[in-house]
Amino acid sequence: QSLKIGLIPADGIGKEVIPAARKVLEAIGSDIPKPEFVPLLAGWEVFVRSGTALPEETVEALRECDGALFGAVSSPSRRVTGYSSPIVALRKELDLYANVRPVISVAANPEEKPAVDLVVVRENTECLYVKQEQLVPTENGKEARATRLITERASRRIGKMAFEIALGRPRKQVTIIHKSNVLSVTDGLFRETIRQIPFDSNGRYDSVKLEEQIVDSAVYRLFREPQIYDVMVAPNLYGDIISDAAAALVGSLGLVPSVNAGDKFVMGEPVHGSAPDIEGKGIANPIAAIRSAALMLRHLGYTAPADRIDRAVDQVIREGQVLTPDLGGKSSTNDVLDAVLKKL
Amino acid sequence: QSLKIGLIPADGIGKEVIPAARKVLEAIGSDIPKPEFVPLLAGWEVFVRSGTALPEETVEALRECDGALFGAVSSPSRRVTGYSSPIVALRKELDLYANVRPVISVAANPEEKPAVDLVVVRENTECLYVKQEQLVPTENGKEARATRLITERASRRIGKMAFEIALGRPRKQVTIIHKSNVLSVTDGLFRETIRQIPFDSNGRYDSVKLEEQIVDSAVYRLFREPQIYDVMVAPNLYGDIISDAAAALVGSLGLVPSVNAGDKFVMGEPVHGSAPDIEGKGIANPIAAIRSAALMLRHLGYTAPADRIDRAVDQVIREGQVLTPDLGGKSSTNDVLDAVLKKL
Ligand SMILES: CC(C)[C@H](C(=O)O)[C@@H](O)C(=O)O
Ligand SMILES: CC(C)[C@H](C(=O)O)[C@@H](O)C(=O)O
Repeated sequence: QSLKIGLIPADGIGKEVIPAARKVLEAIGSDIPKPEFVPLLAGWEVFVRSGTALPEETVEALRECDGALFGAVSSPSRRVTGYSSPIVALRKELDLYANVRPVISVAANPEEKPAVDLVVVRENTECLYVKQEQLVPTENGKEARATRLITERASRRIGKMAFEIALGRPRKQVTIIHKSNVLSVTDGLFRETIRQIPFDSNGRYDSVKLEEQIVDSAVYRLFREPQIYDVMVAPNLYGDIISDAAAALVGSLGLVPSVNAGDKFVMGEPVHGSAPDIEGKGIANPIAAIRSAALMLRHLGYTAPADRIDRAVDQVIREGQVLTPDLGGKSSTNDVLDAVLKKL
Repeated sequence: QSLKIGLIPADGIGKEVIPAARKVLEAIGSDIPKPEFVPLLAGWEVFVRSGTALPEETVEALRECDGALFGAVSSPSRRVTGYSSPIVALRKELDLYANVRPVISVAANPEEKPAVDLVVVRENTECLYVKQEQLVPTENGKEARATRLITERASRRIGKMAFEIALGRPRKQVTIIHKSNVLSVTDGLFRETIRQIPFDSNGRYDSVKLEEQIVDSAVYRLFREPQIYDVMVAPNLYGDIISDAAAALVGSLGLVPSVNAGDKFVMGEPVHGSAPDIEGKGIANPIAAIRSAALMLRHLGYTAPADRIDRAVDQVIREGQVLTPDLGGKSSTNDVLDAVLKKL
């Protein structure tokens, strides 16, 4: 038995952090089936070379894999005909309907409670990300319209995912993020569908506390009192913003992992971007990618090795000796990788 | 000559902070024409009594006023047929196309540079706030769609407003907030229209530095390094979220003022909501409303009295003796009002 993992470094520092995550998976040993890696292409660079940001081969190969790790994509600085984000397309193609982003601060000592310990569960397939846009020239200039789609089906499955994740956490609390005071129909549907879930679940979620917050004040309160949140469930765009906001609370985007999860496939993806400003300098923080690999393992059912990786990373952060510049350190990507490997 | 000001306390603590702002305007004296106040209705409470959240009389009366102050509205906790936010409707009815929200931290001593000193210039009339939504039942459950509208005309006028505001500030920098890596048509139009402005302005904006940020990373960087921002210009929904995020940086939503400004009318509005949890307790922070009154005066051309009010408020905050609970104090709305009046 082997574990087939697609590797899509894509652009910029993606090409530096995904190899680091790969090394960690290789070092895990017999806790997981021997991983077989499948290198795959996607992103801006392959678009420039070949005219497509997501080659058909990549999608086909991923369908044969157990999981995948995705790096980061660069965006062109102006609108380019035919280019659109491969990560958004991949999420849709493989029906990876949930983007799960745990944001946790590493406490100074292992016994302490972390100041921030929440999970953003972001719907991944609809909202404005359906990318149905039109441009119409009128007498008064151009007018552009985009469609925001919210369905009961997608809201229910993302809601269920949030409830399931909450069940596995000590606080067992789900907060619905919405803006139904303005978007009473679309966000109204999102909110009411999720509020309905406990009533349709034979008591399975009786222990889960359900809260809600309007998105603007949710972001405000996230800064002021992050401890009020446990699991936050949000439509696609709010989830995008909120997970970056939450990442700011723990010191660096370079720490925050995510997985794009469907019912049959899971793809790890660091929350940070391709960071063209530091590309090629060898100083990108590999921790988000390494934690994304751990999170991928967790979703594949390999809890113990996932815990091992997370504990190793926590120790490196806590000791504070080997850190990349985004965390105020002077170490390189490889230094941090080596430090993590030593703690494994 | 008199200054006719519509007063719309609306719901919750709106009814506590708008009277405080009124008292400050009354105390200004001969720096402004004697204000004449016109009390007007809007909001959830009037909806419950009369079936409309924005009585036609209110809109008509405002058309006769020089400016207005709006409190805050409560939202029903479930979707209610026929109810929709009066503030959103007012902005549209009176074509108050810009929501201007200065967020500034009060430095410990008056000579110091404030840590946060930025202005969010939010487009106020379109984006998802056009509220074109449909609900369609399908075989797989309900589907809801909303339209996001971005026009060249509205993008240009909000962009110009941002450039004008930047011209009056020492740093003279405008940052466009968008998500054109996903919404290449709508946000692409917003971005490209604003980038075009300097080229069409006969050198007027040559001294302004133009930057841009993707909305998710803009929020991240707002938390990590707020000093990179001067004037942020954003489509409606991003602007809504960003101004709340910025407010979190300065200690309390209760400090942040705004105006809804058109070419012919200006309406002050504290950024905070109706705060049902503290309604009627007499402890709402009146500072956002008082500063909104000052900002309204500023937009009406009364710079000196606006400065006087802002300086009085800064002194009260700096001394830290008379603060409401949201700032860690124990004082009442009236205590803070009295303290400000004394410093005027
Ligand atoms: C790169 C971009 C399309 C993407 C998104 O908006 O989903 C990114 O911000 C993310 O959060 O994964
Ligand atoms: C009350 C609500 C409709 C409003 C908005 O979203 O514009 C509020 O959040 C604001 O920012 O003024």
